[in-house]
Amino acid sequence: LRISARKLAGRSMIWSRKSSIFAPTDTYARRHIGPLEVKDTEHMLNTLGYPTIDAFVADVVPKKILTRRPLRVEPAEGFTESELTRRLKEIASKNTVLRSYIGTGYYGTIVPPVIQRNILECPEWYTSYTPYQPEISQGRLESLLNYQSLVTDLTGMAIANASLLDEGSAAAEAMLLSFHSTRGKKKTYYVDPSVHPQTLACIESRASVFGIKIVRELPDNDNDLFGAVGQYPATDGSVSDWSALSERVHAAGGLFAVASDLLALTVLKPPSEFEADIVFGSSQRFGVPMGYGGPHAAFFAAADSHKRKLPGRLVGLSKDRLGDDAYRLALQTREQHIRREKATSNICTAQALLANMAAMYAVYHGPKGLQAIANRVYSITTIFAFALQKLGFNIVNQTWFDTITIRTGDANKVLAHAVTQYGINLRKVNETDVSVSLDETITKEDLVDLISVFSTLLNDSPATMITHDSVDELANELGISTIAAAPIPSQFKRDGEILNYSVFNSYHTETEMLRYLHHLQSKDLSLANSMIPLGSCTMKLNATTQMTPLSWPEFGSLHPFVPRDQANGYTELISELEADLADITGLDATSLQPNSGAQGEYTGLRVIRAYLDATGGSHRNVCLIPVSAHGTNPASAAMAGMKVVAIKCTAQGELDIADLQAKAEKHKDDLAAIMMTYPSTFGVFEPRVRDAIDIVHDNGGQVYMDGANMNAQIGLCSPGDMGVDVCHLNLHKTFCIPHGGGGPGMGPICVKSHLEPFLPGHPVVTMAGDKSAAIQPVSAAPWGSASILTISWAYIKLMGGKGITKSTEYALLNANYMAKRLKDHYPILYTNAQGRCAHEFIVDVRGMKETSDIEPIDVAKRLQDYGFHAPTMSWPVAGTLMIEPTESESLAELDRFCDALISIREEIRQVEDGAQPRENNVLKNSPHSLKDLLTGEWDRPYSREQAAFPLPYLKERKLWPTVTRLDDAYGDLNLFCTCEPPALEPESHL
Amino acid sequence: LRISARKLAGRSMIWSRKSSIFAPTDTYARRHIGPLEVKDTEHMLNTLGYPTIDAFVADVVPKKILTRRPLRVEPAEGFTESELTRRLKEIASKNTVLRSYIGTGYYGTIVPPVIQRNILECPEWYTSYTPYQPEISQGRLESLLNYQSLVTDLTGMAIANASLLDEGSAAAEAMLLSFHSTRGKKKTYYVDPSVHPQTLACIESRASVFGIKIVRELPDNDNDLFGAVGQYPATDGSVSDWSALSERVHAAGGLFAVASDLLALTVLKPPSEFEADIVFGSSQRFGVPMGYGGPHAAFFAAADSHKRKLPGRLVGLSKDRLGDDAYRLALQTREQHIRREKATSNICTAQALLANMAAMYAVYHGPKGLQAIANRVYSITTIFAFALQKLGFNIVNQTWFDTITIRTGDANKVLAHAVTQYGINLRKVNETDVSVSLDETITKEDLVDLISVFSTLLNDSPATMITHDSVDELANELGISTIAAAPIPSQFKRDGEILNYSVFNSYHTETEMLRYLHHLQSKDLSLANSMIPLGSCTMKLNATTQMTPLSWPEFGSLHPFVPRDQANGYTELISELEADLADITGLDATSLQPNSGAQGEYTGLRVIRAYLDATGGSHRNVCLIPVSAHGTNPASAAMAGMKVVAIKCTAQGELDIADLQAKAEKHKDDLAAIMMTYPSTFGVFEPRVRDAIDIVHDNGGQVYMDGANMNAQIGLCSPGDMGVDVCHLNLHKTFCIPHGGGGPGMGPICVKSHLEPFLPGHPVVTMAGDKSAAIQPVSAAPWGSASILTISWAYIKLMGGKGITKSTEYALLNANYMAKRLKDHYPILYTNAQGRCAHEFIVDVRGMKETSDIEPIDVAKRLQDYGFHAPTMSWPVAGTLMIEPTESESLAELDRFCDALISIREEIRQVEDGAQPRENNVLKNSPHSLKDLLTGEWDRPYSREQAAFPLPYLKERKLWPTVTRLDDAYGDLNLFCTCEPPALEPESHL
Ligand SMILES: Cc1ncc(COP(=O)(O)O)c(C=O)c1O
Ligand SMILES: Cc1ncc(COP(=O)(O)O)c(C=O)c1O
Ligand SMILES: O=C([O-])O
Repeated sequence: LRISARKLAGRSMIWSRKSSIFAPTDTYARRHIGPLEVKDTEHMLNTLGYPTIDAFVADVVPKKILTRRPLRVEPAEGFTESELTRRLKEIASKNTVLRSYIGTGYYGTIVPPVIQRNILECPEWYTSYTPYQPEISQGRLESLLNYQSLVTDLTGMAIANASLLDEGSAAAEAMLLSFHSTRGKKKTYYVDPSVHPQTLACIESRASVFGIKIVRELPDNDNDLFGAVGQYPATDGSVSDWSALSERVHAAGGLFAVASDLLALTVLKPPSEFEADIVFGSSQRFGVPMGYGGPHAAFFAAADSHKRKLPGRLVGLSKDRLGDDAYRLALQTREQHIRREKATSNICTAQALLANMAAMYAVYHGPKGLQAIANRVYSITTIFAFALQKLGFNIVNQTWFDTITIRTGDANKVLAHAVTQYGINLRKVNETDVSVSLDETITKEDLVDLISVFSTLLNDSPATMITHDSVDELANELGISTIAAAPIPSQFKRDGEILNYSVFNSYHTETEMLRYLHHLQSKDLSLANSMIPLGSCTMKLNATTQMTPLSWPEFGSLHPFVPRDQANGYTELISELEADLADITGLDATSLQPNSGAQGEYTGLRVIRAYLDATGGSHRNVCLIPVSAHGTNPASAAMAGMKVVAIKCTAQGELDIADLQAKAEKHKDDLAAIMMTYPSTFGVFEPRVRDAIDIVHDNGGQVYMDGANMNAQIGLCSPGDMGVDVCHLNLHKTFCIPHGGGGPGMGPICVKSHLEPFLPGHPVVTMAGDKSAAIQPVSAAPWGSASILTISWAYIKLMGGKGITKSTEYALLNANYMAKRLKDHYPILYTNAQGRCAHEFIVDVRGMKETSDIEPIDVAKRLQDYGFHAPTMSWPVAGTLMIEPTESESLAELDRFCDALISIREEIRQVEDGAQPRENNVLKNSPHSLKDLLTGEWDRPYSREQAAFPLPYLKERKLWPTVTRLDDAYGDLNLFCTCEPPALEPESHL
Repeated sequence: LRISARKLAGRSMIWSRKSSIFAPTDTYARRHIGPLEVKDTEHMLNTLGYPTIDAFVADVVPKKILTRRPLRVEPAEGFTESELTRRLKEIASKNTVLRSYIGTGYYGTIVPPVIQRNILECPEWYTSYTPYQPEISQGRLESLLNYQSLVTDLTGMAIANASLLDEGSAAAEAMLLSFHSTRGKKKTYYVDPSVHPQTLACIESRASVFGIKIVRELPDNDNDLFGAVGQYPATDGSVSDWSALSERVHAAGGLFAVASDLLALTVLKPPSEFEADIVFGSSQRFGVPMGYGGPHAAFFAAADSHKRKLPGRLVGLSKDRLGDDAYRLALQTREQHIRREKATSNICTAQALLANMAAMYAVYHGPKGLQAIANRVYSITTIFAFALQKLGFNIVNQTWFDTITIRTGDANKVLAHAVTQYGINLRKVNETDVSVSLDETITKEDLVDLISVFSTLLNDSPATMITHDSVDELANELGISTIAAAPIPSQFKRDGEILNYSVFNSYHTETEMLRYLHHLQSKDLSLANSMIPLGSCTMKLNATTQMTPLSWPEFGSLHPFVPRDQANGYTELISELEADLADITGLDATSLQPNSGAQGEYTGLRVIRAYLDATGGSHRNVCLIPVSAHGTNPASAAMAGMKVVAIKCTAQGELDIADLQAKAEKHKDDLAAIMMTYPSTFGVFEPRVRDAIDIVHDNGGQVYMDGANMNAQIGLCSPGDMGVDVCHLNLHKTFCIPHGGGGPGMGPICVKSHLEPFLPGHPVVTMAGDKSAAIQPVSAAPWGSASILTISWAYIKLMGGKGITKSTEYALLNANYMAKRLKDHYPILYTNAQGRCAHEFIVDVRGMKETSDIEPIDVAKRLQDYGFHAPTMSWPVAGTLMIEPTESESLAELDRFCDALISIREEIRQVEDGAQPRENNVLKNSPHSLKDLLTGEWDRPYSREQAAFPLPYLKERKLWPTVTRLDDAYGDLNLFCTCEPPALEPESHL
């Protein structure tokens, strides 16, 4: 039975948007789904032996689950790309971009156009994955190391990570690191009033779970104090010396953390001089748009003694097989994917793309450029303060860097006046105080307007006309005329040079910067090169149309704390997205606050916790988690204060229902929840998922679904329809937010209505609905990384309800086609009774260790020589590779990848047969860099050509690994996380 | 004597924009000029032995010439990047983007976002040069070959070139090819009324020079007829069979040309079926924005017998040293840089970037997608025509593809009604007729509005309300419901498949398209890789800020023939640019019409011709041109109908003033002009330029300056100040329009006031000023490629008068620094008395032929192994290399390039010394591709490592040639100009 294409017009599609003559031609689904052309679909279905996609799907998804509930997502057929852009412009026009001097962790910044175009708008940068395969990721690893160097240098600390999700969660991590360093024996944490309100809220939110007492005044007795945090400069703008507090906390055996600001640190003494143990903050103002809250990279730096406990990823220098310097992610053994509930944090996705932008901003400006910006901000702030004093205003802070807090008497009045008369947003500190934070974008005109806001308030005297001349006079009076002329008070003035690395002193012209950016990206494998078949990661391509709005100021230039009526566009987009996600998951309400999948898990469990607390279940604290779960699940459960109880899996890779039944019953009095992934992390739709859900419900628990695999469900089945209570979604997987080389991400949660009242709130921004029962925020901004929600919104609206369902079908088809092609060459683990996998499948290479000494890593690294990124390695089953093609990959690419794996199988057979040695073979020596192939003598039992071009297509198209296999052990032993790029100053290392 | 940096704040700059504390920080000049930091400038001045830049400049530019007239260009200090963007947004907002159905060669189109982002907005594509070095240009050569294949396939012709400047000049070239094919003996050319008015004007313009008589009715007697041109579909929309005219022209021994439209040709019979000899047109509607007139790629196809006469560039397939297929520019021997006044045309720069966009549009849509678009346009046009007929309107054309001409009685009234009531632009054909051309962007809403424009005109009956339902009814009545349902009348219906090449049938998803684009760009060297030191080409980097506005619809979506009041933004920008260019050149008026330097030369000479004609000098037709001139100068003079008389140069590379004096006097009665380049093409400021100018003036001639080297003059001296009458500027050199891999370009001319009345006019658009004496247009659009004028405008405004002057100084400094570093290794030709060159210099490698058999091409190709593009080779002096670094290159890059050339000198010495053989050495075998280095046995007298990594930096950063040295002779003998990319279907060639 073949599918007839005769009736289809235009490009033959299995599924076409509209058949009318008027149907526009720039439809999207056919551009997104790889094998949608009839001939390709037919070939794949024939290979698998099905007459239709429906027949195929019926063999994959269990009947009970397969509801095919029609989605309400509008438009059902999807917008065309131009319709989408038009609609999004309309939404954008409902956001009002005023000048915002609200500060509080978010500042205006000028994104250098060369960075905007060549990172933020560059698919080579934004479609790459977390650099777990260092040999094909040296570019972004170098850039992240630059970021770490930037942070250590400016904070004065010994070590820094490669970014965290936001300043709020960084603060919470700082508290937890302090808490754990006293082994949780002490319970009191001091948060100084200098700390931003949303940072405090995030700290409090995280503290509650561990029974930590947050105090806002120092206790009489420090016995229970495990740490403290102060902010420098403070939320009111003042700059203070933290030495005394630091000393006191240390005396009590605690850790002292400082929230800080990178721009200020270019000219102010680093917190290391106050003996800070931890310094964190946001790098947003280094060239990353405010974006109504994010995404931005937080930074986190610490004293050397904490390096093995640092949350998040750490890039370090190691050696490759040739002994050359090479970068890699270091100390992964600390991370949640290995340590599970014992991990230092549950953070998996970070903010790599934004950290790279911030690092490059520093590279582009260089130390002198950054200090010029900082001195200018400081000087203009000084003039502003002087002007206000002259006008008779009472300034609360005696010292400042960029922020002035003014006691106005009536904050609301001042704010309204500033908005309506000048189009300026200020910050309401409390009923009487207003603060103003200046930034890089400030001009003389802006300053004139800012002073005028205040001068025109004085209705007893005739409003003083502030002009350019008057500010010049003020500047002269202060003796400020050139950039260096407003002297930082000596007690805070930074001594010595900053950023004295060659990378920050080399690329200051656009030409040099462009070349540096291009050079780094040319080392890295991204979706622009070839498929990245990472199981559980869903590396589908996001469309240009989805990415473009990020460059629009209406989305980029909004401060997250502007009055809500300036963000009507965002509100509309957010509520459409919330509704669509709820519809897709079959649930009732959505929170878009979590900034990553793991953060979503944590939030979901916190919501369950709050619900249980509110319904008499405070004692329920056991969380059942299958052994196959992603490491973030137990880590999140631990962070949510739950006790993890593992559930076994059967030999067929299914949840062991008997074990579940037994453990659920055993814990029926303290059962809080189960966390399960569906289709399972083994890549199958378990037929008994409803039974599992019933068992947990019957024993008083809530059901949490890890939605990382939601791309296998959309339109066919849904968590809500199965009975799930809460589910997170990885927008950076299922919903087309690009991975950005390791972030950003978004992990919203959808919940049943009984959980809705507990969805997180925000201390500064009033969110919709009754928030009296809301849990405290999990992120610093009310809707997490709001600006990238445009991407997922656009993806859904381009595909429409029908299109996203088609995506699911092709995600399943692509995986099953590959599994079928590979199954005669490698054992495929865990298929269902019909021999089908879900959207991903596991290739078993365990047997080869014995027959040939070949291990999964050898296959993974050899794949690089074939121009491919490795599948997910040794997870969820050690010794295997998990492949997820996604719907975006074409038949040609799927075949090319299968050909590569089959060819590798033949190479392994050569070793098995003894034709090649067990060591020093083409697999063990993989990957081969050009240096490896072209320098020195060649004495290997295989030729250079075999190493380089094992299949013909490689002569035409191949991304070359730039280093050979990394030495992980060396790197972890010789931890070196800030340095010069090796090629630039080879003599400067180690 | 060292320059003190102490007083400079921020990043130390030799020259800083403003010193006030309020000065914004995102200034541009310091991002544009490579070595502006104090330490770099100091180092370079020290190397050359000067205390200051002024002292250095005084040794370079002759005192008489060095006026340093302060430029009026505002703002003098330049806008910052954000100020510039704000200002340009303001200008953009003065353009009104309505729906335009004006047609006439310009159509709405949907630029596929993946192409927009990854070609038009991608520095790797837009900063590359014309692919004269094929080994590092295979990507864009492949794409241009795709373009040629697209054109031959759709037109049905045997051969097509890689684009021409616009449809108007393509038409003129078609006429000239026809003219020359009868050796100029016949003088009558028939232009059918079906041809667009601006095409006619361009033909007439070019005809006048050769005494060609353009007739609009077929003559009674065909004896003098050398050719004819008809349009298919016609300007009024009708589709007619041209067989009869074609036969008649052939019977007369002439050539028949057809102006056509690629979209129509996807469904209509190709002109080859009418035995057309030439088919030309515009590829704009294949995804290239209208841009108020350009840039767009014209296409030009011809029968096989004309292939060696085809104007413009031709990409062909050849073999490399390894015998593998490889692309190159074929038959360059026809071109003006070799044939000078005997060339087939004066075209040098073309429209590569736009041709690539159009080709990729076809690749992305594929044959079925293109036909779906065409059928949809045709069907909706049919419905529209039916609706108008029903309303009782008289439709002029009985057949159509996308255009309907309506006899309305009062065209002005209809146009005004359409604009004011519906925001729609229609075309005024004449006082009674209006035409409407539909395009890809048309929606049902648009159709409803279009019909309503006409229905609401009928004031005798109550206006019929046109709705979605009514157009559905019309469609049903016509039996149109799916895309294929409006049948093309069988006599015009195209049979058989189109574009049946794999490249047009493989990349239809965004993922596949992105990878294809990325793959091609990764083969090519651009400014994103390293400097491109092409003498006379000024490969400076254009900034992202300058390129971004091209993506704004306010600049992209304007039809060139919209009412002027919808283009007030363009008018403002154009008049500012005209004024700035006039100020910079010291002249009085500017024409922005010419689309390339060569076109500017031609225009300038035509203006001189018109002036001479008007002032009693019709007999003056001798044009003096130094032997050192660029080949376009004599070619342009020939096309302007002048007789070229060569002027010698002295051994010192200066104009031989005695020879000039003699020839000027000899021709004093028929002297029309001199064309001279300054600084000369030899790279020196000739001290006696004023004398030369006086001599020509004294003998009744006008002085034309070729402004290709204007980047060595700006702010220091100027043509006007020297006494020049007319000068063209290459905006794609001096004024930052990127080279786009071989175009676009812009070649405006500036003139003294006596020539202003003669600047070209336009037949459709009313231009400013009294145009009664204007010459006919040289381009189809009134301001040439208007949309890219934004780039040059932005460059000038970002730099300011002071900044562009600084650019000049650093262009001189960079060149002299390199010359100094190289002079102990290679002889430097032609320096002035102080030993200084201008902005470029010539390295002499002629001596090496004898000592080592090494020729310039060996050095050029070996430079590829060092990661560099070769300098200009064997021009203006055979056997030499001309290096122009531009001001954008950093000291580090200049040094790297010098190091490479010095290292190559050592490699040559090895041959000279006999340490390496005269054949089969590392130079003769260069460049080395990876395939060359990694496959097969190695039996060369140098190691792979020496071939690959002769200097250490190459191990870190290198663009690899993807093929080895091309076999030019093979390619010219076996001309093959349309085909599959070799790697995809290797079996399909030759
Ligand atoms: C099954 C599963 N759950 C949770 C996560 C965590 O998501 P994130 O990386 O966004 O924190 C992942 C991602 O790696 C995953 O694969
Ligand atoms: C000296 C000189 N004149 C004229 C031209 C012609 O300019 P274009 O290539 O824009 O036609 C060139 C450019 O190649 C040139 O170098
Ligand atoms: O194209 C040039 O010959 O400069």
